[in-house]
Amino acid sequence: MGRRLVNGVDGGGIAADDRGLHYGDGLFETMAAVGGRVRNFALHMARLAESCRRLRFPPPDIELLETECRHALGEQSSGVVKLVLTRGPGPRGYRPPDEPNVTRVITASAARPAHTAPEALTVRLCDTRLGQNPALAGMKHLNRLEQVMACKEWSDPAVGEGLMLSMDGRLVSGTAANLFVVRDGRLETPAIRDCGVAGVMRQVVLHAAHDLGIASAELDMGLEVVTTATEVFLTNAVAGIRPVRALVGHGEWPLGPLTLRLIERLATTGEA
Amino acid sequence: MGRRLVNGVDGGGIAADDRGLHYGDGLFETMAAVGGRVRNFALHMARLAESCRRLRFPPPDIELLETECRHALGEQSSGVVKLVLTRGPGPRGYRPPDEPNVTRVITASAARPAHTAPEALTVRLCDTRLGQNPALAGMKHLNRLEQVMACKEWSDPAVGEGLMLSMDGRLVSGTAANLFVVRDGRLETPAIRDCGVAGVMRQVVLHAAHDLGIASAELDMGLEVVTTATEVFLTNAVAGIRPVRALVGHGEWPLGPLTLRLIERLATTGEA
Repeated sequence: MGRRLVNGVDGGGIAADDRGLHYGDGLFETMAAVGGRVRNFALHMARLAESCRRLRFPPPDIELLETECRHALGEQSSGVVKLVLTRGPGPRGYRPPDEPNVTRVITASAARPAHTAPEALTVRLCDTRLGQNPALAGMKHLNRLEQVMACKEWSDPAVGEGLMLSMDGRLVSGTAANLFVVRDGRLETPAIRDCGVAGVMRQVVLHAAHDLGIASAELDMGLEVVTTATEVFLTNAVAGIRPVRALVGHGEWPLGPLTLRLIERLATTGEA
Repeated sequence: MGRRLVNGVDGGGIAADDRGLHYGDGLFETMAAVGGRVRNFALHMARLAESCRRLRFPPPDIELLETECRHALGEQSSGVVKLVLTRGPGPRGYRPPDEPNVTRVITASAARPAHTAPEALTVRLCDTRLGQNPALAGMKHLNRLEQVMACKEWSDPAVGEGLMLSMDGRLVSGTAANLFVVRDGRLETPAIRDCGVAGVMRQVVLHAAHDLGIASAELDMGLEVVTTATEVFLTNAVAGIRPVRALVGHGEWPLGPLTLRLIERLATTGEA
């Protein structure tokens, strides 16, 4: 196990009046470390800064965060670095303090062995849905009860992820991954309008597709896309691209050529 | 200021891997203390137990919580007792541990002077809306970013609360209060189906109305109710019933007879 730094202090605890605890008033980034460095760090920080702006947090001190990520990793060259930023301690009540004293929690840990792409996944469709609110969509904020409840739905270790629908029935994402399908040779991923997270690896994949001349689209998709999809994969910052072999009860897919091209591309660029 | 107990320990901190912090994976109750006792304690605990069941937490140890609330209050006879229950520490990932080690945070504090009913409130309509999800509705869970963002919308101290609409345009509640209106002599409050909190004071008021022979209904309501309402008030466990004097830009109401009857009733029974 790696280190955990709280406001720069090794092994620190969280104040019991922290707004991250009381209201989920905060953000996080889960990042992969490779060769002693955080992969796609600038993209993670760009998303974090944009979310800080939306939640009216002070802009993150990127240099400080980079130093602390390195400090948390220590001698560890690869693994996972999770950063949590909250609006810090505050008095009772939803209203945020005007000048919050932001809390930083940075944890370095070993990557889980299950996360070795490109092992193909079997996934299921979750009953728990995603509430829709454009005010929260896209951000990796700390209000994650829907994902927690969705993960509690199954225990079969053969099922590697759960797909989630929005309340109005659109296919949005995995519990901890963005979703891509290939249809008619085109790469498609759900638009992040009113729910879901704008994943860093999702962005990396869309850029890679562009660079490779692969057509792509962000759009609303219903569950019926699985009947016409020829390839399906999931993405997240830690695992990169994970091909989906089957959606239980709905469809099966081979490891397809476009998925493979993207996996190879990101391996070459070092982005996944 | 009163005491704060973390798992029974005075002044304790929270582990940096607590799921309450990372995912808002927890619940809370904000309760009024009067005469050294927590008002409507049984109703708070009934809601907590039901929410624990829904989130698949172990059932709360009510006796222990009662003892700790008393301990937190100490010599303090009146004030606010806030209880936070989380799914405790855990490894990275949304999936909850099968046998969680629940975290308890109990804080006693002085009631805020603003909360002396029945001072009539001026309220505003918030732009931030409430996402809808029956899986979360009713519970006083820790995913409260919508309320935080709504409270950040105004700073005018003359505005005492903000009303929130659901994504589909129904009038649901205040940021930290349930909403009641009187129309045609009938007491009406928004149904809690897919968003909003099933407030303890809301329940107390509905029971009191029943006991007084006042007709009441839980139903969907749009913003247009304010044009036909003759009385409007807000409720929460700490402040009881607070009459609404005006919704900025939408309507004004006198302190009405039904509101007064209910305030008097709850004062008599000691429920508010």
